[in-house]
Amino acid sequence: MKKLINSPDTVLADALRGVAAAHPELSVDLENRLVVSTAPREGRVAVISGGGSGHEPLHSGFVGAGMLDAACAGEVFTSPTPDQMLAAAQQVDSGAGVLFIVKNYTGDVLNFEMAAELAGDDNIQTASVVVADDVAVQDSTYTAGRRGVGTTVIVEKIAGAAAAEGKSLAEVAAIAEKVSSAGRSMGVALTSCTVPAVGHPSFDLPDDEMEVGVGIHGEPGRKRVPLENAHDIAHDLVTAIADDADFTGAPVIALLSGLGGTPLIELYVIYADIAAALAERGIEVARVLVGDYITSLDMAGCSLTLVRADDEMLRLWDAPVNTTALRWGV
Amino acid sequence: MKKLINSPDTVLADALRGVAAAHPELSVDLENRLVVSTAPREGRVAVISGGGSGHEPLHSGFVGAGMLDAACAGEVFTSPTPDQMLAAAQQVDSGAGVLFIVKNYTGDVLNFEMAAELAGDDNIQTASVVVADDVAVQDSTYTAGRRGVGTTVIVEKIAGAAAAEGKSLAEVAAIAEKVSSAGRSMGVALTSCTVPAVGHPSFDLPDDEMEVGVGIHGEPGRKRVPLENAHDIAHDLVTAIADDADFTGAPVIALLSGLGGTPLIELYVIYADIAAALAERGIEVARVLVGDYITSLDMAGCSLTLVRADDEMLRLWDAPVNTTALRWGV
Repeated sequence: MKKLINSPDTVLADALRGVAAAHPELSVDLENRLVVSTAPREGRVAVISGGGSGHEPLHSGFVGAGMLDAACAGEVFTSPTPDQMLAAAQQVDSGAGVLFIVKNYTGDVLNFEMAAELAGDDNIQTASVVVADDVAVQDSTYTAGRRGVGTTVIVEKIAGAAAAEGKSLAEVAAIAEKVSSAGRSMGVALTSCTVPAVGHPSFDLPDDEMEVGVGIHGEPGRKRVPLENAHDIAHDLVTAIADDADFTGAPVIALLSGLGGTPLIELYVIYADIAAALAERGIEVARVLVGDYITSLDMAGCSLTLVRADDEMLRLWDAPVNTTALRWGV
Repeated sequence: MKKLINSPDTVLADALRGVAAAHPELSVDLENRLVVSTAPREGRVAVISGGGSGHEPLHSGFVGAGMLDAACAGEVFTSPTPDQMLAAAQQVDSGAGVLFIVKNYTGDVLNFEMAAELAGDDNIQTASVVVADDVAVQDSTYTAGRRGVGTTVIVEKIAGAAAAEGKSLAEVAAIAEKVSSAGRSMGVALTSCTVPAVGHPSFDLPDDEMEVGVGIHGEPGRKRVPLENAHDIAHDLVTAIADDADFTGAPVIALLSGLGGTPLIELYVIYADIAAALAERGIEVARVLVGDYITSLDMAGCSLTLVRADDEMLRLWDAPVNTTALRWGV
């Protein structure tokens, strides 16, 4: 295992210290493993997300004005605890309530549910949206129902913008739910990832094969097939996603994310083919991000996410955001 | 070789098509392999850079208002041609002249020199700054003198801001030269990179070793040593850089870049140790970027760059920039 780490046991703590050192404009709570925005939130709904680490910049990179108020970091590929989530809610609730954005993994869902109960006991009003957008498989190793992947980024951006506008908790939750429902995603892995505490690749993938529909923790996908070129991979991803929901007749927000070990030049190569495949199907891309946004440690590969967008979603997408991984309008 | 590509021969062309598809706000000249800013430049000095591909987002990701007016893309790890550079100059010169920002590799330097001559024949005034900041080795496979690496990003940002302010070509060139002279950099590779047209790793690196002082094309560095932890790598990098120039008594702009195959969580892990090592030496970090900014295809590892900054450099660093890879103030 070749990684820039000190010890498998200290990866998360060390990374949070690095975030704190690099970004003094953020507040990093090392004890509770939270990254907290210092943007004013008086009277506004607070938006919180979190999950296992290893998917950076998700979620800590999206903390800041116009997006998340706090991110709860679990150990690598491990859900954060209800106590962390409660601490986050306590730190960011201004009285207007808290929205939890939850990726659909069993541990995350249970722990955020428990956190919502604890917050209720503490007179903090909460709502939750669960993202379950991965079309690859119906159930997986860590999930009942679809896994939650790339749409999470777009839910976090749009919910954060809605909260920044002063919408109520019910309104922010409804918009988040709308975005979540409108998103579909699928990924492909060319290599496995290696969890630091394990020390060897999570799965074996021969030099001439790829895993279509891989999960962001290396969970098995739809099929293992001989390595394809970018054009064919692009068509696989677009077909799987566009066959699952209707993306015609309205613009989409597209996210092409690297999985952590794939360089940007390759993402642009395959984005050219994805754009062509989307155009062939009559899907209009109104906004797009290309880069590492939701990753799987050092896995090589990419994931494509499409969200069918209405005018309000586009307006909120375009609203100012000031985080370490997404920044515009400020 | 596992890559998201169609053919080793079409990587650059395909990637440029992807950039064009993803970023309609940029002008991509596929014939001349240029990415050109659409920001107004009337009366302003134009800033151009370029080099071999495989280091993305350098240079194309830095094209836009407040930074580069154009980037010339060579094939992977191959200098662009004088004709490309001339075409770029012709497209972006508004009469105020053009600054070429050149990384110190023999091919790049010769070709930009020839482009300057051709531009002169075309009545385009040019100036050039050569970045040669890599403290690892004095001469290398592709270089007489030091290689040019991470300081290039900072030169491009600050020169672009100076040009945006309406400074003259001589003034912009002088500031670029000042930044270039004030920067030092070094990298470490945990793995090799694989050039698509070659199809196998550029060099062999055993599972328990790393290359200290590696070049961004996989050129040999200072030494090959047993794999160290993040703390020790951080100290190696900081020591090599800070022993080469005085970084005390003035703030620095720091850039910790991944090399393409290293995930963000690891960059934050080692940045925590880098920040501590810098503090130990009394070096004050005024601004910092952590992420993939100058890469080497899929190489795992990182590079650290420090630029000793004065007030003008910090002011220009903070000026608005609107590119795909760096964006603030807009």
